[in-house]
Amino acid sequence: MTRASTPRASTFTASLPHWLENRPLPDVLATDEERMSLVHELADLNWRAGNGGPFAALVVDSATGELVAAGVNVVLASGLSSTHAEVVALSLAQTTLAGWDLGADRSLELVVNWRPCAMCYGATIWSGVRRLVIAGSGPECEELTGFDEGPMRDDWREQLEARGISVTSDVLRDGALRTFAEYGASASTVYNARRD
Amino acid sequence: MTRASTPRASTFTASLPHWLENRPLPDVLATDEERMSLVHELADLNWRAGNGGPFAALVVDSATGELVAAGVNVVLASGLSSTHAEVVALSLAQTTLAGWDLGADRSLELVVNWRPCAMCYGATIWSGVRRLVIAGSGPECEELTGFDEGPMRDDWREQLEARGISVTSDVLRDGALRTFAEYGASASTVYNARRD
Repeated sequence: MTRASTPRASTFTASLPHWLENRPLPDVLATDEERMSLVHELADLNWRAGNGGPFAALVVDSATGELVAAGVNVVLASGLSSTHAEVVALSLAQTTLAGWDLGADRSLELVVNWRPCAMCYGATIWSGVRRLVIAGSGPECEELTGFDEGPMRDDWREQLEARGISVTSDVLRDGALRTFAEYGASASTVYNARRD
Repeated sequence: MTRASTPRASTFTASLPHWLENRPLPDVLATDEERMSLVHELADLNWRAGNGGPFAALVVDSATGELVAAGVNVVLASGLSSTHAEVVALSLAQTTLAGWDLGADRSLELVVNWRPCAMCYGATIWSGVRRLVIAGSGPECEELTGFDEGPMRDDWREQLEARGISVTSDVLRDGALRTFAEYGASASTVYNARRD
């Protein structure tokens, strides 16, 4: 490889898949269940469309229910290994609101269909969201999908709370398990770390 | 806020600052010390330019020394809290090489001026790099800069090795400490999680 034929990139971009970009979404999601129901719907559509893993995430205003951003995992579509659903949703929210701190002037929350992986766990902390809403947090995600979620601390929840991020779990848990099981039974690509 | 005035973003982008985009960089960095020396230089320039924190990262071909990507922390410049130096360098490398797996057909390494934070630790694992080269890993970074590096496991290094990523530490350690100390003595913005 020579520099003349492959100049080093100086910018990177990730976009929502067209089916999601063009999909009418509600402006307000009043309850945790309404929020998670949309997450499950988008996660299921996402892997079937071949964009990435069976994961979706929303950024929602905790007080008003306003939907600020919707993201899905686009690792395969974007070619970027960090574009998990959480990073996409948080980055889109920061783009819309034009700032890196989602806690600057109101309380926003991240709603996602399982406990974030090791990377997205950190991304959640740095984003400024004040609440994390998940469908579950056990080993079922890894067992059903084949994904490695990475090295997590046993006290992951306490570490979030210590940084001002409350955690609500087990919201529509069965819906997440259904998506993971159907994904696991398919022949989809599991992009992942090597285990040597 | 109404949807008519602030439509939800469907794409996000991060770019290198102009001073780095336009800077001639070597095509090959033969030794760990040459690689880390460039990291220190870019980290120092970066915070002084106001783009983000005092961090830089390179993606290098371990066998040939080819410089595949150079990144710096652009949280302040991009408005995206996930654009730490490691995520930027890894994403730029994946953009240049057009694929999410940096370990697909050769051994690439991430060179960075301290142990990655909780988020970038996960991002390193998912990227496909096979080696991590750092200037150090102790509490000095947090102590000198004021940044929170997030919840890490005590066995973070063993967890990387178990996933096929070797770790080389203490390469030009003093250079990292010098950058962090000068940053800490300045009045720069420490974007970070809240501690409630």
